[in-house]
Amino acid sequence: MTAAIMTISIMQAQESLHFDVPCISPQVNSDSTVTLRLRAPKAKSITVSGFGEEPLAMKQDSTGTWSTTTSVLKPDFYTYSFNVDGVRIIDPSNAYTARDIAALFSEVIVPGGNANLYTVHDVPHGTVSKVWYYSPTLGMRRRMTVYTPARYEDDTNSYPVLYLLHGSGGDEEAWNELGRASVILDNLIADGLAVPMIVVMPNGNADQSAAPGQTSEGLYVPDASRSRTEPLKFEQAFSDIMTFVESHYRTCPQKSGRAIAGLSMSGGHAWRISYLRPDDFDFIGLFSAAVRFNGTDIDEIDDTLKTGINRQFANPPKVYWLAIGKDDFLYDHNAHYRTLLDNLGIQYSYHESQGGHTWTNWRDYLVLFLPMLFK
Amino acid sequence: MTAAIMTISIMQAQESLHFDVPCISPQVNSDSTVTLRLRAPKAKSITVSGFGEEPLAMKQDSTGTWSTTTSVLKPDFYTYSFNVDGVRIIDPSNAYTARDIAALFSEVIVPGGNANLYTVHDVPHGTVSKVWYYSPTLGMRRRMTVYTPARYEDDTNSYPVLYLLHGSGGDEEAWNELGRASVILDNLIADGLAVPMIVVMPNGNADQSAAPGQTSEGLYVPDASRSRTEPLKFEQAFSDIMTFVESHYRTCPQKSGRAIAGLSMSGGHAWRISYLRPDDFDFIGLFSAAVRFNGTDIDEIDDTLKTGINRQFANPPKVYWLAIGKDDFLYDHNAHYRTLLDNLGIQYSYHESQGGHTWTNWRDYLVLFLPMLFK
Repeated sequence: MTAAIMTISIMQAQESLHFDVPCISPQVNSDSTVTLRLRAPKAKSITVSGFGEEPLAMKQDSTGTWSTTTSVLKPDFYTYSFNVDGVRIIDPSNAYTARDIAALFSEVIVPGGNANLYTVHDVPHGTVSKVWYYSPTLGMRRRMTVYTPARYEDDTNSYPVLYLLHGSGGDEEAWNELGRASVILDNLIADGLAVPMIVVMPNGNADQSAAPGQTSEGLYVPDASRSRTEPLKFEQAFSDIMTFVESHYRTCPQKSGRAIAGLSMSGGHAWRISYLRPDDFDFIGLFSAAVRFNGTDIDEIDDTLKTGINRQFANPPKVYWLAIGKDDFLYDHNAHYRTLLDNLGIQYSYHESQGGHTWTNWRDYLVLFLPMLFK
Repeated sequence: MTAAIMTISIMQAQESLHFDVPCISPQVNSDSTVTLRLRAPKAKSITVSGFGEEPLAMKQDSTGTWSTTTSVLKPDFYTYSFNVDGVRIIDPSNAYTARDIAALFSEVIVPGGNANLYTVHDVPHGTVSKVWYYSPTLGMRRRMTVYTPARYEDDTNSYPVLYLLHGSGGDEEAWNELGRASVILDNLIADGLAVPMIVVMPNGNADQSAAPGQTSEGLYVPDASRSRTEPLKFEQAFSDIMTFVESHYRTCPQKSGRAIAGLSMSGGHAWRISYLRPDDFDFIGLFSAAVRFNGTDIDEIDDTLKTGINRQFANPPKVYWLAIGKDDFLYDHNAHYRTLLDNLGIQYSYHESQGGHTWTNWRDYLVLFLPMLFK
């Protein structure tokens, strides 16, 4: 066999791949529209979801390829799917997907604005590790995602730690997959806009040891019910995470070296953990947070809560940051909580964005929150 | 808002998920068949590929759900896809996928035999990290997957290192995604069948810094041409990988503490690296290897090669293991190489399997190879 033939036959036979990408999709256009294409000569109707409130209809050309072009889009990391005659599919021409609970979505980035921070650049990259720790409180091995910044392995410095928590239905993969956390961190740190930090993304579902497929339960169908658990169970077991992190990484194990943030369900986690540990966190981020205590919404500040909040703010955190979108279903809930804080004379920062309870907002909030930390 | 309503509304609104899993698929049956289902009332023809040589036809029931049940399958980790009226899709009911170059495949495990080693068990798990190093030889930052065994972070011992290399079209993700490497390692180490070791899975495409989507080139369409490079370029830059690993991990930096193995293209890498570094590796695994030198097949042993091989085996490695399937397109090529070794009186081990140039075989070979290492 000659070298040339050998090379070709390896290419053809290697890794069982005999699949022609049928068309170019997605195609990001210079005017910030995206063209989607799907070759499906026999389909009767195809739509694409993920670019706006309503699905977009696609049109078939004479060769059997369907396509549509979106309106001008805001810069962002978009996730989308096709519906082909009632069957929801990802884009077969696109190798890049993110999982949201049980569903896969195709990915595309419309550049500009913050989306440039969601895009990998040729900068020093941190290490992203899937790490297992044992939780004595929960009696199980549990998995977390840990980001260590680019120079961590090359020096002997200690680094501050952000605990970054996911929402209901998510797991230790969510912030990195849907939230682009490690890409955002690489870029902000390279630009000098965030200090190098360790970011710990644990699994916040107290009854679940790890993301679906990573446990002895096998390849089950994920569903959001895995997030349901008794009140305070995750919060009570949080010390196991801190103990593990501070004994296995070079951290700054004091209030000024610790931050905690979460979205939605885990905005509640971050609220309660920082409330229960007033001496532990100087930087607290509540993204679209479900601020609740003992399993119920906080309608008024009773004596217990007042004592707790006053204790937390007697030596106040440096940053106590709330962010929510105007269309978020938790907007009123958050507004009520801010009023309670105002009535107590508590100082906090507040960011109000457009939009609702979405990863678009949570990525933006992370971009705003990270530069405030450890300064 | 009451607690109960709040919980429901979080569940409904969280993470943009409004997707009902339409049917149970895949369903692994107790007789080692697998039933696949897809709800597609308007489809005219559906097949499923991945279970045998030919696609299986699916049949539609009166509700619009298509299904088929495979024949009895050997235990394995299977990857499959549907073809719906000419459109190749993954199984919409299955959240688990692996990427092979540009194509995604749905995953299912038929238990038993080695497939039990491809299944996550409740045993101590190693850490899987995506680590970037700088290669002075190639002038680029490059990404590797590193497995450190379960107790690595808890002790101060030094560990031996296996360098595990992917084939053409693959990258630093391939061995862990398609090869189930970290799951196999966790299970074999927990069973005492393999010694705890560090496993380094670099990117073997010398002109590529990282897997698709992980570089500043963005979300391009992957293709196998990324593996094409000038002869010996990866091999010459391999010292950068060893230098990084041995300066950043607690290794046993001598011949008895190093192994190298690769499949297909990188069976060639492992062959050449171990040939060029006769004092560095005591354990060498050539899986379906493309054994070539200076860019051409080895048809006969000339004086240069004879000198090199004799130098390598003057102080022979403890394990020099070749494995190939009877139907592999590289079978004759490997048989010829074994004859050349025989003519030189070189000692090696040889494993011949059924089947061809497939991940089924490469996973099996890894299971056979790991227990031989560092003993």
